Amino acid sequence: MAHASAKAPGILTFDTHPSQYRHWRLEVDAHTHIATLSMDVKEDAGLSPDYKLKLNSYDLGVDIELADAIQRLRFEHPEVHAVVITSVKERIFCAGANIFMLRGSSHAWKVNFCKFTNETRLGMEDASEHSGIKFLAALNGICAGGGYELALACDEILLVDDSNSAVSLPETPLLAVLPGTGGLTRVVDKRKVRRDLADVFGTLAEGVKGKRAVEWRLVDAVFPSSKFKDGVARHAAVLAAKSDRPATGPGVQLHPLNATVSADAIEYSSVSLKIDRAKRMATLTVRAPESAVETTPDAILEAGDQFWPLRVFREIDDVMLRLRTNEPEIGTIVIKTTGDPALVLAADEALLANIEHWFVREVVHFIKRTLKRVDLTARTFFAFVELGSAFAGTLFELALASDRVYMFNDPDLANSVQLSGMNAGVLPMSNGLSRLDVRYYGEPDKAAAVLSRNGPFNPEDALEAGLVTFAPDEIDWDDEVRMAVESRAALSPDALTGMEANLRFVGPETMETKIFGRLTAWQNWIFQRPNAVGPKGALTSYGTSDRAEFDFGRT
Amino acid sequence: MAHASAKAPGILTFDTHPSQYRHWRLEVDAHTHIATLSMDVKEDAGLSPDYKLKLNSYDLGVDIELADAIQRLRFEHPEVHAVVITSVKERIFCAGANIFMLRGSSHAWKVNFCKFTNETRLGMEDASEHSGIKFLAALNGICAGGGYELALACDEILLVDDSNSAVSLPETPLLAVLPGTGGLTRVVDKRKVRRDLADVFGTLAEGVKGKRAVEWRLVDAVFPSSKFKDGVARHAAVLAAKSDRPATGPGVQLHPLNATVSADAIEYSSVSLKIDRAKRMATLTVRAPESAVETTPDAILEAGDQFWPLRVFREIDDVMLRLRTNEPEIGTIVIKTTGDPALVLAADEALLANIEHWFVREVVHFIKRTLKRVDLTARTFFAFVELGSAFAGTLFELALASDRVYMFNDPDLANSVQLSGMNAGVLPMSNGLSRLDVRYYGEPDKAAAVLSRNGPFNPEDALEAGLVTFAPDEIDWDDEVRMAVESRAALSPDALTGMEANLRFVGPETMETKIFGRLTAWQNWIFQRPNAVGPKGALTSYGTSDRAEFDFGRT
Repeated sequence: MAHASAKAPGILTFDTHPSQYRHWRLEVDAHTHIATLSMDVKEDAGLSPDYKLKLNSYDLGVDIELADAIQRLRFEHPEVHAVVITSVKERIFCAGANIFMLRGSSHAWKVNFCKFTNETRLGMEDASEHSGIKFLAALNGICAGGGYELALACDEILLVDDSNSAVSLPETPLLAVLPGTGGLTRVVDKRKVRRDLADVFGTLAEGVKGKRAVEWRLVDAVFPSSKFKDGVARHAAVLAAKSDRPATGPGVQLHPLNATVSADAIEYSSVSLKIDRAKRMATLTVRAPESAVETTPDAILEAGDQFWPLRVFREIDDVMLRLRTNEPEIGTIVIKTTGDPALVLAADEALLANIEHWFVREVVHFIKRTLKRVDLTARTFFAFVELGSAFAGTLFELALASDRVYMFNDPDLANSVQLSGMNAGVLPMSNGLSRLDVRYYGEPDKAAAVLSRNGPFNPEDALEAGLVTFAPDEIDWDDEVRMAVESRAALSPDALTGMEANLRFVGPETMETKIFGRLTAWQNWIFQRPNAVGPKGALTSYGTSDRAEFDFGRT
Repeated sequence: MAHASAKAPGILTFDTHPSQYRHWRLEVDAHTHIATLSMDVKEDAGLSPDYKLKLNSYDLGVDIELADAIQRLRFEHPEVHAVVITSVKERIFCAGANIFMLRGSSHAWKVNFCKFTNETRLGMEDASEHSGIKFLAALNGICAGGGYELALACDEILLVDDSNSAVSLPETPLLAVLPGTGGLTRVVDKRKVRRDLADVFGTLAEGVKGKRAVEWRLVDAVFPSSKFKDGVARHAAVLAAKSDRPATGPGVQLHPLNATVSADAIEYSSVSLKIDRAKRMATLTVRAPESAVETTPDAILEAGDQFWPLRVFREIDDVMLRLRTNEPEIGTIVIKTTGDPALVLAADEALLANIEHWFVREVVHFIKRTLKRVDLTARTFFAFVELGSAFAGTLFELALASDRVYMFNDPDLANSVQLSGMNAGVLPMSNGLSRLDVRYYGEPDKAAAVLSRNGPFNPEDALEAGLVTFAPDEIDWDDEVRMAVESRAALSPDALTGMEANLRFVGPETMETKIFGRLTAWQNWIFQRPNAVGPKGALTSYGTSDRAEFDFGRT
């Protein structure tokens, strides 16, 4: 994994492997079906030398390893049915996000750090709900802030009862920020802690321990130190027994993506990104498979991470993360596709026909999570449906995830988009709706109507059906798409981020969208406030000899 | 209405009357059952002399009159079944919130301005849904930004089709902020404009007019100028016909509250506020009725605005608005009640027995809106249940709205809280749940269980039932409540605002909570961003010879 300064992050990459982990140990017990993921953060191995990761505190580098471990457990270890998350440090589970890292980080870095860690924790809940991997937080010691937020993302929380170990969310009292990695939301919405008790808990720097932590629903059970290990094993076994995963492997190895990175381009096997810095835009091109994908479980398993749907979405996922972290000024992403749409539709058929198979199920949920990552990426997405494109089925989801869709319209030249069963609900957004249902929020029957067409939509039909935004003809196309990109690039990036975050999430909210909408938006506000980040703010003063000084005006 | 500078607001009051309006004309036609509320903003009559309210742009003073008009239509004019909102200025409906006012305002003023205007617009939707008053926006000319957001709060939007008049949300392209008075949310969630069209609309400074505005669902119909008046009358008549309100009055006059305001206190007939500036806290004391309230429709109507439930909640509403606007540094409000709880419970019975009567219905919905105002007030609320208190039924809702409840517990001295049917769902929060259901979000059957007790809860029972947070005995009481207030006052006001906004709204989100959660939180973030409010920000540069300069880093 590359190294980057938190202050001025250089090129950060997201590829890693258990053999390279510096902060976690991953042990898999194929017999009990339980994996143990133990935190052992190396103080001196932060992404930046400017801070030390003491007391199992973490930075983005630590979380990239966690995300990798969970991803690999899903794909490489189908025999794992439950995961115990714990620490190898004595009397310390995790002290949360590193405060000195946060203090030294730019606003954008803080925001992206929180976004990635939120996605990782929601990914754990996704694995629990959809993949039969249950998570147990075994809190062997102090569990503060982001440490407790990690525990909150687990199905069960066990705490050692040793008169020392407490769970706490000290962000508000100590740092004048929020427990923004889902903490406030999960305490009341998931753990269903009573709101007044949550208020007390959220202002109590020392946290809550022992029996009271159980009574307040902050943890599920406490055990004295002597019985902790047994208790964890017993509870993990119960969780593992709930799984519907295979009893044995083999799993599918996730090999490095081996992207070719140059100054203004990233090349993968089926994905290219080309950056135009002058226009603050990039073109993301996704290529259809070049030949028919595997269609039987055995062949798909044998293809492994080269199975096109997995391969292409791993590449899209990686490019999104790189864009977010390494290219803050590239505000607009134009999405294009190329190749044979029939081969995309055949791949969709293979996915849908085998969706009960553990590996195909993982692939579909990974595609879903990658598309959610697109929805949550604070960049404008315009899909350009040009001649020779392959916006069909799963790849059309990229158009549906875009803020606008432009389709080239020349009656003499064939250009089409097409839907498949993959657009019908297996790839929901964070709000629980399919992107088609979101698109047709005002016309509840329309999603079914467009899905019922078993064939392509030409530009006129696509426009009429509302599948695309505009369909300029060959006379207007160049000017219209150029103007769209140029006028977008002239707008305030902050206003666009706020606008897109509101318009993309029509309709119901879920715990997941509340974390990104309500909680994150408030946290981002606080991350701008002098009371937190100003010269005398609490985040600035923490750990120094200065005391924070607040402007006490309420807003 | 008092005058206040937007930059350094002095004492602002919220009492006004149609005879004092400077910016609106209210006409009631008892024959057609239609009221017409016409905007005619006086340029030189803003709250501050620092800006001119050109083109029917508005500041808080304009919106206080609007809120007053709607409130009076509900209470004073039961014969009004529909309201047409229009403008008397030619070719101009409303240009939105005044930009120079926003530019010159402190962050806190901007936030509170938006909160009040949001509450006013949600109050219109509340009147439509619950009181049988439908709203029609008759857009006789340019309708931009906050002007269109006002229209969005109406049941129907009619636009004149004169090649000039458009609806627009130019905030993002012109000012680098959001249409934050519900605009983004209502466009997609209420009007159900397709998300890609909403994206185009939200970046198009000149807006959309004519047939396209109808096709995109931005307005319900357009009429050429010559047919506009007739069209409005016809549509208003259809809306009025849907009402279940009485055919004739008389209504209930809302007289001035006549608060006695001194430096550190506000006194009303049944409510007192005492401010302790050193502790940055205030004590709000609400008094039970002194004798039995009226119980028959005729007697209640005759009592009018002196009917205790209306009188006391008008006073609570007024004190909340004064606190928000005039006392930014008072961070904690301790709520106390005094008097005979039996008289409160008798008042609750009178409300519930007559809830089908138009006036009682209005009173109950007004209590509901006032309590929502408490939920949305960015101050900490602690309820102190002391000896002699009257936390019963509707007044116990104030405890349920509080962040914590402390109850004095001496086995030798009687102290109790009690529920009534008013706690059972007629006063829902913005998220649609009763405060009891929110409190017991983790125990779905518990609200019914506590409601089934037909009698008081002593401190031990109340603690056991989870109706109160803590019940210190007489030895601990003084220290514990003092410590609670002091330690709260030491925390960052911003972190508390964010924390409370998350913990108070457990569970589902509605369009209403999305406006205050997702949209407002993003807007508040943007209101802190240099791209909007910095020296070269778009809000700062608008209308000057300077061009906005952006930091194009995306966040």
